[in-house]
Amino acid sequence: MTKERAFFESLALKEKGKLCPEHVPEVYHFDRTMSLIGMRYLEPPHIILRKGLIAGVEYPLLAEHMSDFLAKTLFFSSLLFRSTTDHKRDVAEFCGNVELCRLTEQVVFNDPYSNHWTSPYLDRDVEAIREDNLLKLEVAELKSKFCERAQALLHGDLHTSVMVTRKSTQVYDLEFAFYGPMGFDIGAFIGNLILSFFSQDGHADETNDRKGYKEWILKTIENTWNLFHHKFTALWNEHRNGAGEAYLPAIYNNPEVQLLVQKKYLTDLFHDSLGFAAAKMICFLIILRRIVGVAHVEDFESITDAAKRATCEKRALDFAKILLKERRKFESISEIVSAIRQI
Amino acid sequence: MTKERAFFESLALKEKGKLCPEHVPEVYHFDRTMSLIGMRYLEPPHIILRKGLIAGVEYPLLAEHMSDFLAKTLFFSSLLFRSTTDHKRDVAEFCGNVELCRLTEQVVFNDPYSNHWTSPYLDRDVEAIREDNLLKLEVAELKSKFCERAQALLHGDLHTSVMVTRKSTQVYDLEFAFYGPMGFDIGAFIGNLILSFFSQDGHADETNDRKGYKEWILKTIENTWNLFHHKFTALWNEHRNGAGEAYLPAIYNNPEVQLLVQKKYLTDLFHDSLGFAAAKMICFLIILRRIVGVAHVEDFESITDAAKRATCEKRALDFAKILLKERRKFESISEIVSAIRQI
Repeated sequence: MTKERAFFESLALKEKGKLCPEHVPEVYHFDRTMSLIGMRYLEPPHIILRKGLIAGVEYPLLAEHMSDFLAKTLFFSSLLFRSTTDHKRDVAEFCGNVELCRLTEQVVFNDPYSNHWTSPYLDRDVEAIREDNLLKLEVAELKSKFCERAQALLHGDLHTSVMVTRKSTQVYDLEFAFYGPMGFDIGAFIGNLILSFFSQDGHADETNDRKGYKEWILKTIENTWNLFHHKFTALWNEHRNGAGEAYLPAIYNNPEVQLLVQKKYLTDLFHDSLGFAAAKMICFLIILRRIVGVAHVEDFESITDAAKRATCEKRALDFAKILLKERRKFESISEIVSAIRQI
Repeated sequence: MTKERAFFESLALKEKGKLCPEHVPEVYHFDRTMSLIGMRYLEPPHIILRKGLIAGVEYPLLAEHMSDFLAKTLFFSSLLFRSTTDHKRDVAEFCGNVELCRLTEQVVFNDPYSNHWTSPYLDRDVEAIREDNLLKLEVAELKSKFCERAQALLHGDLHTSVMVTRKSTQVYDLEFAFYGPMGFDIGAFIGNLILSFFSQDGHADETNDRKGYKEWILKTIENTWNLFHHKFTALWNEHRNGAGEAYLPAIYNNPEVQLLVQKKYLTDLFHDSLGFAAAKMICFLIILRRIVGVAHVEDFESITDAAKRATCEKRALDFAKILLKERRKFESISEIVSAIRQI
């Protein structure tokens, strides 16, 4: 890790820790000269969420905890809660974390669609993506939001940076943090759960057909968004007359207009989240599992039967394409769950 | 002027001067300690564009020059031309100009719609705007883009900061510069021309009915957008294989997808520009002419007959409301010109 990375990681850990201490490990000490972060040890039985999902372990509080983390950290770092002065100051500071932002940009929005990127595993499905002009148009829109829109302080790499027990959920690895579109964090988490869903058939065996587990994943996807929606809206209502400058109470001054702006904000955020979920899924399926040393998609790699693995991957890729291109047609998370079932 | 203002003004003058030296006065010297800018004197017969418009003077090169200024300064400071690293560095620097950004935000997006703002001139039309929930929903979307989207380095206050002769067009007063949505600059200029159009009947007299002049204004509105569209697209095509990271040639690699992304980009920009034009018009009509010491809308104030002035203002306000709420229905600038004629 370069020094810059440790600085931004500790800064983001402290910021997000203030906003949601229940789900962010405490930082005890940061030494900039030594690039040293002293922080809470996530003791056993905490394990990386991905490992738990592959093992088929249910985490009954996961949706409750992650919706809490997302609602609080995104709401409190946005213009719904803050003044434009504070916002611009912090945006400027996190602009310094450009090196890791570029890495995300490249891996999520460039490499999967680039003809410069060759792979021995390249097959017809991947080729089809690279020839799909309408899909690339959608990717361009998402990339533009990622690069240009400073909506809230994001984790920036939420796909796997979650450690869990049945009672605790802790979000760590914040070195990719920056001000960006909220949907990028929500989408990363939901996209990861969708990938896990499609990988489960490859992990089924005679002792466990994983059918019940797949239902739990779908329920967790649905609950995460619905609880997030509920909590985010509640925070907005609670702080409506506070310092947030996006919707001043002197202007948004009647129940009808308040409902209108909330509905529009959350519908746009829902569609952003679906788009980023799809982009992350495609990135994982096409790029990350080919690179040594970068985050892996163990969900699929750990399926030993190659034919089974290919079937799982193809279904995940097919769904990601639908999600990317047709996300604006979906009005609720339950429609997404139905669409997942239909693949 | 605070010291901060002079610093950002000189920085923006130099930046934009590099990108479009023909239409930005040269900075000879800047002294940060003394907050002193030494720059080109815009010699007579240069006058402020607004004065010329009120006097009914035609500027045959205005659309050509302003489309040039807008296309070059916006294109070259965007991710269509630059790397995300350079972009983030400059966005961070201009985040420091928060004081003047807040002033714009307040005057354009808050005060016209705020019940805290009372005015002896407040009439039913203004009340109707404050009770129009759908209109406020549109204003919220534009304000969010203004505060969150760092698309290009903007002038930030282009309504009147233009000095002209029949042969020369010079853009000055850059102390409001910041990274924001391109449509804010384009809209400020076009909205200003639309306001001037609606004020002309108030300036008509027995020697000049202003009919020919109104046609010239409409033609200038149409030419400004069409020439901008043409020049911006040409710059994009010319620099397609350059350092710009928004649309990498390895991905946007066939004529169809190139056309698709350009069409989407410029359609979105057109609708943004119309929205910001409307927001600026409403701000001028409701707020700026009431405040002593802040930029005035002499176009209307100089109409001495109060009844005539009120009629002109009402028509301008009616058109701004249509533009704000129905801008996405318009597909070309000639449709806008037709709609202006129909008011």
